[in-house]
Amino acid sequence: MLEQGPHFASMFTCVDSFDTHARIPEYFASMDAKAKEAGKISLISVGWDPGLFSLIRVLGVSCLPKGTDNTFWGKGVSQGHSEAIRRIDGVQDAIQYTVPVDSAVDAVRNARQTEFSTRQKHTRECFVVAKPDADTEQIKNTIVTMPHYFSDYDTTVHFISQEELDRDHGTMPHGGFVFRTGQTGKDLESSHVMEFSLGLDSNPEFTASVMVACARAACRLHQQGQTGARSIFDIPVGMLVDMTPEDLRKNLL
Amino acid sequence: MLEQGPHFASMFTCVDSFDTHARIPEYFASMDAKAKEAGKISLISVGWDPGLFSLIRVLGVSCLPKGTDNTFWGKGVSQGHSEAIRRIDGVQDAIQYTVPVDSAVDAVRNARQTEFSTRQKHTRECFVVAKPDADTEQIKNTIVTMPHYFSDYDTTVHFISQEELDRDHGTMPHGGFVFRTGQTGKDLESSHVMEFSLGLDSNPEFTASVMVACARAACRLHQQGQTGARSIFDIPVGMLVDMTPEDLRKNLL
Repeated sequence: MLEQGPHFASMFTCVDSFDTHARIPEYFASMDAKAKEAGKISLISVGWDPGLFSLIRVLGVSCLPKGTDNTFWGKGVSQGHSEAIRRIDGVQDAIQYTVPVDSAVDAVRNARQTEFSTRQKHTRECFVVAKPDADTEQIKNTIVTMPHYFSDYDTTVHFISQEELDRDHGTMPHGGFVFRTGQTGKDLESSHVMEFSLGLDSNPEFTASVMVACARAACRLHQQGQTGARSIFDIPVGMLVDMTPEDLRKNLL
Repeated sequence: MLEQGPHFASMFTCVDSFDTHARIPEYFASMDAKAKEAGKISLISVGWDPGLFSLIRVLGVSCLPKGTDNTFWGKGVSQGHSEAIRRIDGVQDAIQYTVPVDSAVDAVRNARQTEFSTRQKHTRECFVVAKPDADTEQIKNTIVTMPHYFSDYDTTVHFISQEELDRDHGTMPHGGFVFRTGQTGKDLESSHVMEFSLGLDSNPEFTASVMVACARAACRLHQQGQTGARSIFDIPVGMLVDMTPEDLRKNLL
């Protein structure tokens, strides 16, 4: 993606869902240079996270500067974690679900608690198909102790057949919650909670829908003669929708 | 407001929370003319509804074009409904709370139902101080049968003393929920729910916080040499916050 993105940005108006958070600054810079050179617009890192969730985080910090952010993901399939399991010796196939801890979500929603350890916010549930004769105890141990991916979480491992995996874990539901809890008033005596959540039957279909909405904006920016890279933070929300500014103000404001 | 807004727009960069939905097109036009003439920016109808809720409604229709909107308000004080009660003969003072019906909110959240009658979505709860010797039965009857304000709702009326009203109903909590439920897929077989909610200890303090965030954007637009009226739909969200675009992309995208 770090090579493909700039390659296409030098030829077309582009929209992508680049999601390696740590490398966004570098990716933005190279997309910006290529798109400017070509007289095109590239809208990077759109989808729901990064994307809609990012936009809500900015709304939160804008409107409640004294406050705390909390994002919960799931219940949903993590491609990265599923792939990490599939690379273990003796594993034939695997799916990993990230699951938000209900009691932590409720604590944030009711402004009772805003600071949590990694383990307190999410659990991880793994459905693994072992190869014939594989040592399932060892596979399980390799998973739950894996640094970064699993060792900081309470992780459950279920061994199932390939048939069960294909039958019961073939869809891609996902979702999550973004919270901003903050205080206002002379002595910060008023508490406020802002919550945004998504419950998605299909992560890829919804992500594609967000990207299509952003493509409308990219096209409009290009028609205005703008060039370079943009993120969701740079786009007036009215540009995402197929309505005139007059109709938007009349019907949705 | 229809006179005051344009008067100030002709002298200053302005931010307002104009909320008479039906008159927004006319108000926008007169603010736009005055602000352009003066070389200023006026950002109209910001706060949480209109404002943040409007923005979420546009996100919803952009990302899930096949779907349904539902907004619930409360529990919170409605100034308009409180004032309507205060104008009744024999009423000394009154506060009216708009209350969302939990079962309707849950039905939308779980994508079980999206169409409701007015009565199914909200109830109205009134706390009324009657004047000495007033006919409370008649006051109650005038309230619950009042067209537009109460007749389409299940309305509860409590008569209390001025002391109780001042002691127990002096704060201004509010909030609400905006939902977009929609479908994607070849046969619209995937359902998605987008939810945004606010739980506010103080409606006026939070509204003011949103207006301050919008004032940052108005100031930036003015510095860019832009003029005329704008709504929340025209503002890139990154302009609301006191961070550089680089820091935003690095930390919040």
